[in-house]
Amino acid sequence: MDVISSRRNPLIKSAAALRESARERREREEFLCEGARLCRDAAESGLLIRACFFTDRAQDRYREYLEPVLRAAKKAYMIEEPVAALLSDTKSPQGVFCLCAWPSGSEAGPGGPCLVLENIQDPGNLGTILRTAEALGRFRVFLLGDCCDPLSPKALRASMGAAFRLWPGSGGTARELLGRLRAEGYGIYGAVPAKTAVPVTEMDFSRGLHGVVIGNEGRGLTEETAGLCDGLVTIPMGGRAESLNAAAAATVLMWELSRKGGTAESWSI
Amino acid sequence: MDVISSRRNPLIKSAAALRESARERREREEFLCEGARLCRDAAESGLLIRACFFTDRAQDRYREYLEPVLRAAKKAYMIEEPVAALLSDTKSPQGVFCLCAWPSGSEAGPGGPCLVLENIQDPGNLGTILRTAEALGRFRVFLLGDCCDPLSPKALRASMGAAFRLWPGSGGTARELLGRLRAEGYGIYGAVPAKTAVPVTEMDFSRGLHGVVIGNEGRGLTEETAGLCDGLVTIPMGGRAESLNAAAAATVLMWELSRKGGTAESWSI
Repeated sequence: MDVISSRRNPLIKSAAALRESARERREREEFLCEGARLCRDAAESGLLIRACFFTDRAQDRYREYLEPVLRAAKKAYMIEEPVAALLSDTKSPQGVFCLCAWPSGSEAGPGGPCLVLENIQDPGNLGTILRTAEALGRFRVFLLGDCCDPLSPKALRASMGAAFRLWPGSGGTARELLGRLRAEGYGIYGAVPAKTAVPVTEMDFSRGLHGVVIGNEGRGLTEETAGLCDGLVTIPMGGRAESLNAAAAATVLMWELSRKGGTAESWSI
Repeated sequence: MDVISSRRNPLIKSAAALRESARERREREEFLCEGARLCRDAAESGLLIRACFFTDRAQDRYREYLEPVLRAAKKAYMIEEPVAALLSDTKSPQGVFCLCAWPSGSEAGPGGPCLVLENIQDPGNLGTILRTAEALGRFRVFLLGDCCDPLSPKALRASMGAAFRLWPGSGGTARELLGRLRAEGYGIYGAVPAKTAVPVTEMDFSRGLHGVVIGNEGRGLTEETAGLCDGLVTIPMGGRAESLNAAAAATVLMWELSRKGGTAESWSI
């Protein structure tokens, strides 16, 4: 097995660039995955792993996690600790990394509940929302506008690998996306903290296809997108107004959509 | 007004120590609050503000926010930019800080729904949970075991000031706390990702007093605490098991408690 000890090794520089830059990830359709558990998750989710990098220490400590990764990886390299530090996004790297091709598509097929995210800027929020969307019943997820990258190191950590299986669709305008969903039979509701919207507790999601749109953490939905929705929905609050963060609001709305919705029968615990 | 230009000024060193150390905050019963919005929130929540520090630039940029803070603060100091950098927990400080006494108590009285957190370690999770607990209806919140500090800079940012008004009770063992709540008439349910627990969708929170206990992010509830609960509750999931993070699980359970519970009538949107 090749050992890489130089931080100037071209393959390492190329992997480090993927960690740093969303543009690099987008143009090359690749990303860097860090951590024993997340790398194993990538392998078990069927991702194409172009290369695996691991330190000597990681080989001992994370043997069980590494095995399926090494079976799946096209190539494997031993790296020295300073190289691991360069690739890592954390202060105490575990020393396990995979260079992966983009996920090929979402496992969530048509017919399930739907979640549209517009201009979500915090990678922790985006990752958490994807994790919850997978846990509560395989939502179809779409990104609109200027969302952050679900394959950034921070978003990946928060998603716990959900992005590998629930790869969100993106591209196109709000008008195009909502039009397409409406043609499939979806009713789409924009989430707003406004008295004029319908409380989610008064909505009936038990029949038909439904989806919600969550907007930016500070500014909420754009006026254009709100105007394109079939209606506006809000979460009744007892405390101060506008005090749920985007991930918490998304959790409540996804819970209501999936609890009453078509996925209830397939629930297992 | 006094101007502080030295990072070695004793008052500044004392304030910086509050930012860094949970022990310092606990022993002195003080904390450091950063940011224009959070400082205004501290003032408007009636906290005792022993000192306010702000830069010249902040005075221009955040005048509206600073006004109520300066009215409430016992003392105010202009600080130079390098001093602001020392006090700040962020890369781009706004240049507004308050040295505050601990919140004096929670506004949430007896009779409402109750949330107990055990060994929550991530300050972002703790802050988010407090914010949601306030938004959904003034939960009574208690901390058990080795929870992180709700007054750390990161927890404060995530709580958006909820900790000022929903100051969680702490101290004492699980046996003591759950015994006390039971004596008040509460039924307390431990949240676990286990097939043997009752799905929250099958529970009826519409009568009586109820509370849930949420455990550590990785390890869940301690066996001891789980054994002390009146029952165990779980969140039915359609996707992979154990895939909700602690804050998302807390959000779903708080929503179920407050949606059906006694606070429903007082909801406003």
